[in-house]
Amino acid sequence: MNQESTKPILFTRGNPAEEALPIADLINCANLAFQREGKILFQYGHYSGYGPLREWIAQRFGVKYEQVLIGNSSMEFFTFVAALMVRPGDTVYVECPSYDRAITAMKRIGSNVVGIPLEKDGVNIDMLKKELKRSVPKIFYIIPDFQNPSGVTTCLEKRREVTHLAQEYGFYIVEDSPYRHLRYRGKDVPTFRELLPDQVLHISSFSKILSPGIRIGFVLLPMDLAPRFHKWSEDTYIHPVLPTEGIVNEYCRKGLLDPNIERLKGLYRPRMEAMLEALAENLKGAEWIEPDGGFFISTTLPEKIDGHAIWKSCRDFGIVLTDGRGFFPDGKGENFIRLPFSALLPQEIEEGIRRLAKAIGHYRK
Amino acid sequence: MNQESTKPILFTRGNPAEEALPIADLINCANLAFQREGKILFQYGHYSGYGPLREWIAQRFGVKYEQVLIGNSSMEFFTFVAALMVRPGDTVYVECPSYDRAITAMKRIGSNVVGIPLEKDGVNIDMLKKELKRSVPKIFYIIPDFQNPSGVTTCLEKRREVTHLAQEYGFYIVEDSPYRHLRYRGKDVPTFRELLPDQVLHISSFSKILSPGIRIGFVLLPMDLAPRFHKWSEDTYIHPVLPTEGIVNEYCRKGLLDPNIERLKGLYRPRMEAMLEALAENLKGAEWIEPDGGFFISTTLPEKIDGHAIWKSCRDFGIVLTDGRGFFPDGKGENFIRLPFSALLPQEIEEGIRRLAKAIGHYRK
Repeated sequence: MNQESTKPILFTRGNPAEEALPIADLINCANLAFQREGKILFQYGHYSGYGPLREWIAQRFGVKYEQVLIGNSSMEFFTFVAALMVRPGDTVYVECPSYDRAITAMKRIGSNVVGIPLEKDGVNIDMLKKELKRSVPKIFYIIPDFQNPSGVTTCLEKRREVTHLAQEYGFYIVEDSPYRHLRYRGKDVPTFRELLPDQVLHISSFSKILSPGIRIGFVLLPMDLAPRFHKWSEDTYIHPVLPTEGIVNEYCRKGLLDPNIERLKGLYRPRMEAMLEALAENLKGAEWIEPDGGFFISTTLPEKIDGHAIWKSCRDFGIVLTDGRGFFPDGKGENFIRLPFSALLPQEIEEGIRRLAKAIGHYRK
Repeated sequence: MNQESTKPILFTRGNPAEEALPIADLINCANLAFQREGKILFQYGHYSGYGPLREWIAQRFGVKYEQVLIGNSSMEFFTFVAALMVRPGDTVYVECPSYDRAITAMKRIGSNVVGIPLEKDGVNIDMLKKELKRSVPKIFYIIPDFQNPSGVTTCLEKRREVTHLAQEYGFYIVEDSPYRHLRYRGKDVPTFRELLPDQVLHISSFSKILSPGIRIGFVLLPMDLAPRFHKWSEDTYIHPVLPTEGIVNEYCRKGLLDPNIERLKGLYRPRMEAMLEALAENLKGAEWIEPDGGFFISTTLPEKIDGHAIWKSCRDFGIVLTDGRGFFPDGKGENFIRLPFSALLPQEIEEGIRRLAKAIGHYRK
């Protein structure tokens, strides 16, 4: 099969679409912020981030100013969590599958990463209880809304059950919530933080709703953990990058964020729908998660398909996939396929799924 | 002594002066960079930093592109060095005194931080040789130009001796070089990296010569260490903050950096001179380092003075000092006083040193 001339369709990272970035508004906000606050934003600042943006976040989420720590990406907070809450050898739980970069971050500090099987409405509670009898984790890392990589949203009942278990066994929940505001259908479910504020670290960012290049993540901390996290920030890099925080503060305070989120929903919803339609049309007999928002749909191929061979030769079929094994702490994810729809046009999605179907047909055992 | 109404003079951190920040040029460069490259700078990017700025740095320092890693502050590279080159329990050397934040960073990973006494022209080589017989470090952290906190510049002969010992004993030199371009008199001494490129990590930043708020640090890596550092960057935060790197790239490529450095020398040189004069006038009998550049002068008070009491009550005398003990890995720096002159006007410096002299007079044992 010679498809060298075909431009591959990338089902790899969950990037925002290029047209999602409100460049003109960001330039305008940069000008305003730098003109007014340049002497603050370009000078040394506070280790917890730019004060006005911390205030804005605190108000939006209904938390105290001291609970808000801004950093250079939400990703980096894993290193803070790892340093302050987990020792080498300690157990941490993740959903299985989970975000590959988070698994890498937890593994690189030598922690024992245990995956709790994820179902269509959240983790399997029986399996979770069984695992808790074996070893109690320091933290349970969960992406409750439109999960990366699966697309799953944890239902309210399971959120309640997990928080009860967290109280009973005394572990913290690290709630990673970058996609939450990108809901295309259905209604919001309360966050873990809202259900159990004293035992949940709520991590989020502006990457998916505004810009990833700015790398602005933030964590809403339980009050008793906050001082150690703020100090860790200072000892790591003195303070996070400020001019970009000034731009985002300007953007938020001008009331531009919520309209931008609405615009993004209008951009991404048709892509999700196009992918669901293309899957129904081309992958008959297969199963996939039907998400209510976010960037990802996922499918697990039946055992009779050689998923690993598909990943290795996907370029021959004109698509690029991420190795499914990276999303599983035990590496057993050969047949798991993550399908990000965020950065592709509907017609690219349709064509990409057709190519995927061909690859699957080719590697039927 | 009631000086409550006196505005204290801050001899604390080494901040650039407010008037040092070229805000108007930075705003102009932000506009140009964001207009042209916004779709790249606000999107996900490369884990080693913004390509054009990496290229510019590579050319300026005469290294390969692959050797340049940009990050969110030079400070944070200590955590990379700590993670990739030093294990808990390993020995690391620092100059004694050394940069307090670097000592904290090395200590927090559980390494055994050994201070090699610093003289007016670099570390005491005999003491270094003696210490090497006892335990060989993984790294030797050195600030060779206008050292923070002392103001010392290591002479060429001592640089050569240290590099020879690094070769003989097989340790790496971590060369921290943020002040190097701010030389107010005398001639440049070759860097450690120039003397021993394969065993020196040269860390620098734009904090002192352009803006600290942007937190742009970079490290020039020996080729064999580079891949692991680049990967660590990706696994830590995916990539560093990009829009600010775009601004700095624009600034550098418009040829604005070197004129700015010249302007800063004109700003800081008189402050250094004012401080040296004020010391000569007010601290008769005391000794201090006469630096050739940078932000700091330092003095070690004779034993008959209670330096700790001065630090604790300095506000009563209308000045604020940093606790000298933080600069010494063994905490024995009660009588060491760091005097940053960068952010103070000459008349503030004169008044501040007069107040310091009063405090010293008060705490003569």
